[in-house]
Amino acid sequence: MTDNQASTHSSSQYLSAISAIKKKLLGRKLTYKEIFSLMDEISHERLGPVLTTYFVAAGFSEGFSNEELYYLTKAMTETGAQLHFSGIVADKHSTGGLAGTRTTMILVPIVAAAGFKIPKNSSRAITTPAGTADTMEVLAPVTFEPKQIKKIVEKIGGCIVWGGHLGIAPADDVIIQIEQPLAFESFDKVIVSIMAKKIASGTNHLVLDIPVGPTLKIRNFKDADKITDKFKYLAKKFKVKLTIDVNQILEPAGHGVGPVLEARDVLKVLEQQPDRPFVLETKALRLAGKLLDLCLTDTNRKESGEDLARNILTSGRALEKMKEIIKIQGGNRQISSHEIKLAEFKSEIPSRKKGLITDFNNQNLTIIAKILGAPADKKAGVYLERRIDERVDKGDILCILYSQDKWRLKEAKETLESVPIYKIEYHV
Amino acid sequence: MTDNQASTHSSSQYLSAISAIKKKLLGRKLTYKEIFSLMDEISHERLGPVLTTYFVAAGFSEGFSNEELYYLTKAMTETGAQLHFSGIVADKHSTGGLAGTRTTMILVPIVAAAGFKIPKNSSRAITTPAGTADTMEVLAPVTFEPKQIKKIVEKIGGCIVWGGHLGIAPADDVIIQIEQPLAFESFDKVIVSIMAKKIASGTNHLVLDIPVGPTLKIRNFKDADKITDKFKYLAKKFKVKLTIDVNQILEPAGHGVGPVLEARDVLKVLEQQPDRPFVLETKALRLAGKLLDLCLTDTNRKESGEDLARNILTSGRALEKMKEIIKIQGGNRQISSHEIKLAEFKSEIPSRKKGLITDFNNQNLTIIAKILGAPADKKAGVYLERRIDERVDKGDILCILYSQDKWRLKEAKETLESVPIYKIEYHV
Repeated sequence: MTDNQASTHSSSQYLSAISAIKKKLLGRKLTYKEIFSLMDEISHERLGPVLTTYFVAAGFSEGFSNEELYYLTKAMTETGAQLHFSGIVADKHSTGGLAGTRTTMILVPIVAAAGFKIPKNSSRAITTPAGTADTMEVLAPVTFEPKQIKKIVEKIGGCIVWGGHLGIAPADDVIIQIEQPLAFESFDKVIVSIMAKKIASGTNHLVLDIPVGPTLKIRNFKDADKITDKFKYLAKKFKVKLTIDVNQILEPAGHGVGPVLEARDVLKVLEQQPDRPFVLETKALRLAGKLLDLCLTDTNRKESGEDLARNILTSGRALEKMKEIIKIQGGNRQISSHEIKLAEFKSEIPSRKKGLITDFNNQNLTIIAKILGAPADKKAGVYLERRIDERVDKGDILCILYSQDKWRLKEAKETLESVPIYKIEYHV
Repeated sequence: MTDNQASTHSSSQYLSAISAIKKKLLGRKLTYKEIFSLMDEISHERLGPVLTTYFVAAGFSEGFSNEELYYLTKAMTETGAQLHFSGIVADKHSTGGLAGTRTTMILVPIVAAAGFKIPKNSSRAITTPAGTADTMEVLAPVTFEPKQIKKIVEKIGGCIVWGGHLGIAPADDVIIQIEQPLAFESFDKVIVSIMAKKIASGTNHLVLDIPVGPTLKIRNFKDADKITDKFKYLAKKFKVKLTIDVNQILEPAGHGVGPVLEARDVLKVLEQQPDRPFVLETKALRLAGKLLDLCLTDTNRKESGEDLARNILTSGRALEKMKEIIKIQGGNRQISSHEIKLAEFKSEIPSRKKGLITDFNNQNLTIIAKILGAPADKKAGVYLERRIDERVDKGDILCILYSQDKWRLKEAKETLESVPIYKIEYHV
């Protein structure tokens, strides 16, 4: 194709994208060709914010059929970089919205130690105090090229890298920018986003963690059901083996919130320390078990996935695999939970009264952690000493605030007065 | 209100505008307060292109109730500058889309000469070869402050000025920018745009010219009926006396297309030259007559509006009033149609065959006129010698192209081969 033909092609595709937007605004269904034009123009940032917004708004107002969701996912996948691996490629994803629940970093070494490929690419925090990529970065570099990722995974089975610069499903990133000013993403869009990134990453066995809670992205089980059906439809179209874990969440599963504190939680579980976060461990084992069930079935192994996962964890093989991953990604494999350096300044927050912890505010937790400096200050964050349903005496420590900046620490402490994390009720 | 309160107010209004957009995207009706927040934020360009596009898209997808149209019009009016005059204030508006039909410049002096106020503000060309403001500018300056307009109108009854810098219904201008990339404006939006500008200009007696044609904004009479009903609803709400002229249009009413050529057409009609464009004169008299009917009824004068208009035109009083307007706006009142200087370069386009002119392409006319340099080159344009239904011999001149730039003239001539203005059929 000559340059001239190429430019004629792109200009005609631009026009086709515009007429697709008009068509959708008029409530009509789009063909694959039309959706591909749109995603290709959007991924190359040729549409501009106004036209991209028209498309997003039209999708929101008119909704998408299952077929259109499939087309969107496929087109987002095909208009960006793609990773290719042979055989079983396992992956895990959470619809997210919850701080302090770093299951991925426990699940990945377990699944890799079980002999399955799990090239995990994760995001950095956008609105939360830490993403998996931020947390892994406490232990090792996370920025790699697709070729390097392929080499790492072929060699040791797994990795935990930052997905943001891989160019996977780039149209999704552009659309997310457009969604931010209105601060709402349709469920359809959440589903397409997740599936496009997975398909482009070569995933063919997937466990989906769908936490449900009043302060999370998915607020009730009815919504979770709707979403589950659409995920299943797309997984079938793309021939991905899928298992879904819908679970009610009221508070973080771990103790630490913020990159360093969360990394320490992960190491404590892998090292099987007596003071490890058991709720986090339980959740990670359940998700790993469900994912392994999918993988084992496909390799005619009749074990229970969760038993295998627990065995790998308690035997130390998960820790060993994590150390391999840390090392191959350029980190220090000698690291242990005891050696993780915490922030310079901390402040213990005592309970002001005797009572029962009856509720936990995840949104306020995020606000406080961000005031403390997370995620930019990797050591900033909150260590949660107590959980819902625990009884506390006056003076008992509820949580510890950490920061590298004493002014931020002071501000967070003051903010906590009006933006409390724990709800404590006094019962006679 | 202190600065602090003011800023709290604007920030809460910004949030209210955002929640109004979400509400509309969800298909719900907006209250006046919500619509006012939106228009106020948009008019001050505080929403930004993405949020403004969400609103425009939501309005397009979900439509607006009559009540919402009223709220939109009222809010657009109230969030910008407003002109105030006492007594009867007449005005004329065309839904437009047609080149070479400058009725306004004939109607305004007629209505002013009849003793009614007509503070006409017009637009410049956006997508056409000339707007009324561009054409009037051939004869006199058109940029004035609201105060000056008030003074002019109080003194001589009428003016023909550019409305674009008056700050009237500024939200509309911002929204129009957002509509351009998709190149479609909903009828609702056209109606709101027009009415908001009229209400803000103080209009209380209005004639609406709705040309209908396959290449115009309103393509068929069914659409014209829908629009007519909504205009009537809004006019009633704002207590504006309204008369509507729905008319089929196949070709320009005048001979000239382009600012200078159109200004010459207007002067020829006002001077009652034998070679004046009669179709243009007829249309201007009809519109002026209908508008005068409204005004006369309200002043208990029992004359026929069209008779009065014709009388004012043929007696020379319209020309005299136009000269007053030209003078007070700073132009040369001695100007006559013979003294108007045409472009340096011209090219006569002959018919290549004998036949009957069966159709006229207004869109191609616009393309050719713009290639010739209109409206930036005020002398550029096309002079139409022939109309639909005329018989022509081979070699008869169909039209004359004008430009100040001989390369543009050459390009226009060449383009005319593939983008013809006239359709000529040969019948035995």
